[in-house]
Amino acid sequence: MDFVKRVTTDGTPDLVPPGDRIAVFDNDGTLWPEQPNCIQFVFAFDRLKMLAHVNPDLRETEPFRTALEGGLDRLATLDADGIIEIIKVTQSGMSTEQFSGIVAEWLATAKEPRFGRVYTDLVYQPMLELLDYLGANEFKIFIISGNGTDFIRVFAEKTYRIPPERVVGSTTVAKFRVGTAGPMLMKMPEVEVSSDGPGKPEAIERFIGRRPIFAFGNSDGDKELLEWTAAGPGVRFVGLLHHTDAEREWAYDRTLKVGRLDKALELARAKDWTIVDMAADWNIVFPFQRDTAGT
Amino acid sequence: MDFVKRVTTDGTPDLVPPGDRIAVFDNDGTLWPEQPNCIQFVFAFDRLKMLAHVNPDLRETEPFRTALEGGLDRLATLDADGIIEIIKVTQSGMSTEQFSGIVAEWLATAKEPRFGRVYTDLVYQPMLELLDYLGANEFKIFIISGNGTDFIRVFAEKTYRIPPERVVGSTTVAKFRVGTAGPMLMKMPEVEVSSDGPGKPEAIERFIGRRPIFAFGNSDGDKELLEWTAAGPGVRFVGLLHHTDAEREWAYDRTLKVGRLDKALELARAKDWTIVDMAADWNIVFPFQRDTAGT
Repeated sequence: MDFVKRVTTDGTPDLVPPGDRIAVFDNDGTLWPEQPNCIQFVFAFDRLKMLAHVNPDLRETEPFRTALEGGLDRLATLDADGIIEIIKVTQSGMSTEQFSGIVAEWLATAKEPRFGRVYTDLVYQPMLELLDYLGANEFKIFIISGNGTDFIRVFAEKTYRIPPERVVGSTTVAKFRVGTAGPMLMKMPEVEVSSDGPGKPEAIERFIGRRPIFAFGNSDGDKELLEWTAAGPGVRFVGLLHHTDAEREWAYDRTLKVGRLDKALELARAKDWTIVDMAADWNIVFPFQRDTAGT
Repeated sequence: MDFVKRVTTDGTPDLVPPGDRIAVFDNDGTLWPEQPNCIQFVFAFDRLKMLAHVNPDLRETEPFRTALEGGLDRLATLDADGIIEIIKVTQSGMSTEQFSGIVAEWLATAKEPRFGRVYTDLVYQPMLELLDYLGANEFKIFIISGNGTDFIRVFAEKTYRIPPERVVGSTTVAKFRVGTAGPMLMKMPEVEVSSDGPGKPEAIERFIGRRPIFAFGNSDGDKELLEWTAAGPGVRFVGLLHHTDAEREWAYDRTLKVGRLDKALELARAKDWTIVDMAADWNIVFPFQRDTAGT
């Protein structure tokens, strides 16, 4: 709040005009959980199982066989090429509008096993409040994710109040086709990966064209995003969410493959960035805990 | 105005909520001239000449020799590979911020020979009024151009009130580097072309993620953009600027290599889209003509 007050107070040297108040957020692990599996992997796995009913050949072909037999945890350990094959099969070959419909239906029905809630119930309440607070102070808020742009776009506007044009991530390439029903955009089996790490400031340049004054992440994949934001002139806010709460959410940092937090944590401590300790700092984690917490 | 009234009037079936009022504009030939040469080519040529003073080897190497000896008109006739070589040499090897500074300096000083004005004086006055009108009616306005994103971004906010994150086009790839002065984004000699034609709706999907309800173009390169917009459900506005005014600007359509207008004009007539005849419909073309026109 001190930062926001400084950059929004007229007549001070720290004032940043509303148009330049760019705030960027990582999505997975920053706005909603990424444990025990990245949620988009859960979607891809559910869809792969469904496709295997229609097309049993998938059960005989790698890497689908390994994933179908080994389950979701096995899918998550595939190498990048394997993951990309899964994405191609589960998220292409249809129009962009059809894909959005499939995601919307899955999000409305699939339940996260530990909490027994649909996934959009598991966004972090304190982060929703932060998004609202920044929005009320005329920040332009973007998501910069390594995960799927058109997956996140389906729920971002309703859940975070972040419209589709402010969601940046990876995607299957959409190609313009004129079919019998008129022009359409067809999702092709070709993946454009918006990498973690240095790919995040690069994506900011491509999509936003301006350096953020505010950035929030949670893992080493966000390190360059945070560094790039911090290194600009003037007042900056750089935040890092540390998952320390095995009881209410998950506790993890240095030892994980997906969502590892190690170098970024060292850097945050060295640079005195804002580190949020979930267990210590958050009264509640998820919106559905509001009642029990008495807020 | 009839269209805008329909989509903005509460309580009618045609109402489109502000967040969904996406309007897209081509830039060259739609918001400012593209004759006798694309303005970014003029910039590239000026910069090539300057670089050749510093590095005379360029005079001995193709395609630079051809361009330097043949002049701007010869540069414009190079094939796509040749143009890309010119872009690589003139628009990479520096930070994104350095490049913006070079463009800003050129735009502030270079004069267009026919009118003796800086190029940003040559944006079309009626289009500026249209942009203001749409903005006042809570449209989100984007530029979808085949030309350089980071070239257009330098002047779009001041000239059109369109901020950097709403400018989509081609670019040299920016790579994240950590140098002695801290992190930077370095423009690499690698060109990402946002093609004309079908590339325009594809870029809309990538950057906006929603179909526009309003589109304005001026050439066959905008045909798919206009078709994609027109084919959506509900009320749509599709506009085409026809350059018919050799006296005040330029007159051209079917016979040109750059900026050809042929198939899109046929389609606009068949579909009853709005065709603007510059000579007949515009009281003035450029802002500096306001005084003489008595407006």
